[in-house]
Amino acid sequence: MTIAPPTIGVIEEAALRIAGLAVRTPLLECPAADAACGGKVLIKAEMLQRTGSFKFRGAYNCISHLTSDQRKNGVVAFSSGNHAQGVAAVANMFGIPATIVMPKDAPSIKIDATRGYGPNVVLYDRFTESREDIATTLVEKQGLTLIPPFDHPLIIAGQGTVGLEIAEDMAAWGEIPDQILVPCGGGGLISGIATAVISKFPDCAIHAVEPEGFDDTGRSLVSGSRESVDRDARSICDALLVPTPGELTFPINQRLLAGEVSVSDDQARHAMAFSFRHLKLVAEPGGAVALAAVLGGLVNCESKTTIVVMSGGNVDPAMFADVISQPL
Amino acid sequence: MTIAPPTIGVIEEAALRIAGLAVRTPLLECPAADAACGGKVLIKAEMLQRTGSFKFRGAYNCISHLTSDQRKNGVVAFSSGNHAQGVAAVANMFGIPATIVMPKDAPSIKIDATRGYGPNVVLYDRFTESREDIATTLVEKQGLTLIPPFDHPLIIAGQGTVGLEIAEDMAAWGEIPDQILVPCGGGGLISGIATAVISKFPDCAIHAVEPEGFDDTGRSLVSGSRESVDRDARSICDALLVPTPGELTFPINQRLLAGEVSVSDDQARHAMAFSFRHLKLVAEPGGAVALAAVLGGLVNCESKTTIVVMSGGNVDPAMFADVISQPL
Repeated sequence: MTIAPPTIGVIEEAALRIAGLAVRTPLLECPAADAACGGKVLIKAEMLQRTGSFKFRGAYNCISHLTSDQRKNGVVAFSSGNHAQGVAAVANMFGIPATIVMPKDAPSIKIDATRGYGPNVVLYDRFTESREDIATTLVEKQGLTLIPPFDHPLIIAGQGTVGLEIAEDMAAWGEIPDQILVPCGGGGLISGIATAVISKFPDCAIHAVEPEGFDDTGRSLVSGSRESVDRDARSICDALLVPTPGELTFPINQRLLAGEVSVSDDQARHAMAFSFRHLKLVAEPGGAVALAAVLGGLVNCESKTTIVVMSGGNVDPAMFADVISQPL
Repeated sequence: MTIAPPTIGVIEEAALRIAGLAVRTPLLECPAADAACGGKVLIKAEMLQRTGSFKFRGAYNCISHLTSDQRKNGVVAFSSGNHAQGVAAVANMFGIPATIVMPKDAPSIKIDATRGYGPNVVLYDRFTESREDIATTLVEKQGLTLIPPFDHPLIIAGQGTVGLEIAEDMAAWGEIPDQILVPCGGGGLISGIATAVISKFPDCAIHAVEPEGFDDTGRSLVSGSRESVDRDARSICDALLVPTPGELTFPINQRLLAGEVSVSDDQARHAMAFSFRHLKLVAEPGGAVALAAVLGGLVNCESKTTIVVMSGGNVDPAMFADVISQPL
């Protein structure tokens, strides 16, 4: 059975569901970034979202569609941290039992924040334990409903509300976005944004930005089929370490994206430090990759209006302290 | 001669002057602060302003009124850093020569950022040199125009645009602000905000927040005349270390403010760490005092709509790293 990708109507319906609960994040001017790239840069600041990343949107949209039986049995999510917080926060709002399965080596700020919403947190070792075995037990034996991190139409539609807000703001200001750069892991955020924005601004170029070594979407766009990352790949961008594009997200991205660029860990760190110094926004490494692509000149922004999606700000204080202490 | 305080009309005129040049900063929802105080908190995020603080607004409004002769001779400003950056940035936009006099012990991020706009930066020793002597030479002998940090109707009117934006946003959302907390040094920002907001929402209570030991406005409101701080007072809130309320700002504040509270350095540091962890905004110590007052329970926010003005984010990386590394 083929699952249909979400339409703009489904995204608009998601926007109604999250209204007043999710933060309508601002699209921020930033003269320092304009000066750095010779064009106009607008930042969609999703670190200002409830739970510190865009993930609240999709989690809320998905969980709000569950039946009362599903709610009674509870939900389960696997996540290194941002989706974990989104699902835990929403389950808490609805009074639904939640089990969150997180790798032991996830940033401790993410584990602590997730625990703050009161779910059952199960830590596992990514290198010796099977996430699939844990999933089977929880979903099949305990009857929990899995809230997937990206490959679900309601998750994509929820994340797509980011694009809807961008399109609404640009229309209200009488401006046209030339291009939008979006951090890309499993592709849920960018496929939702692309669906929403292209329905309103068909000529806008949507670019995926991935960490070097985790350019599975980029390579898949070139080859035409879903490629996987090397098992030995490493990156500080913990939010974007997905091994292969989603079954549902990839065809959408294949149809709608203009291209992909990859940034190094150093470029991500530089963008985090730039964001601290000039934008006064706290970005986590994965949340800063689109800004890194602009600052690194990987996408031409000269004389264009470029929207940079900064997707999250859940970074451990020790890492942030280290990043901002380096000279720019 | 008595100088008249700025009217709402003068503030509205300032808003037209800065439109498209200053960032129209967002009024941000923040569920984490709501949960902490049991009411609704909205953050006016002036660290997102051009130059990293609200000071750009007043500097632009004041300098844009100079005559062509005054512009040719140039401007001078004294500041520990935020007003310095505001004046240097505006002078640079107009192509006006600028001399900025800063204390040697100002945060280096502020000295570096000011230098980035290209003015002549003069450093002086606050403990052995007379700022007044330096001023006399520059203003009287070299013919420079002094751009004062707060005690000028056009400066107050420029800062008052912060209040105008708050009032516009609340009106657009159909909400009524119960109270606004504003960091207070010389009183330029809060006198401007109070003038603008009270003209639109006459029942809104405006509270000044000062660092402990620098509660000159608070004590002056009680005594009815302009009190001074103790010469031995120290605080990490470098942006707010003004010895006595302004001649022009104090009568406005005396007429319009509901009261004052003071926060300790530890409370300011706690608010900076909270802002990093939950709001994902970079605040400098002086910029965080109003949030500190809310988190410290110094003003009752229960079941109220409270607007917290965060006035700047120009903090040295080393200090920020230290603050966020402490447990909350």
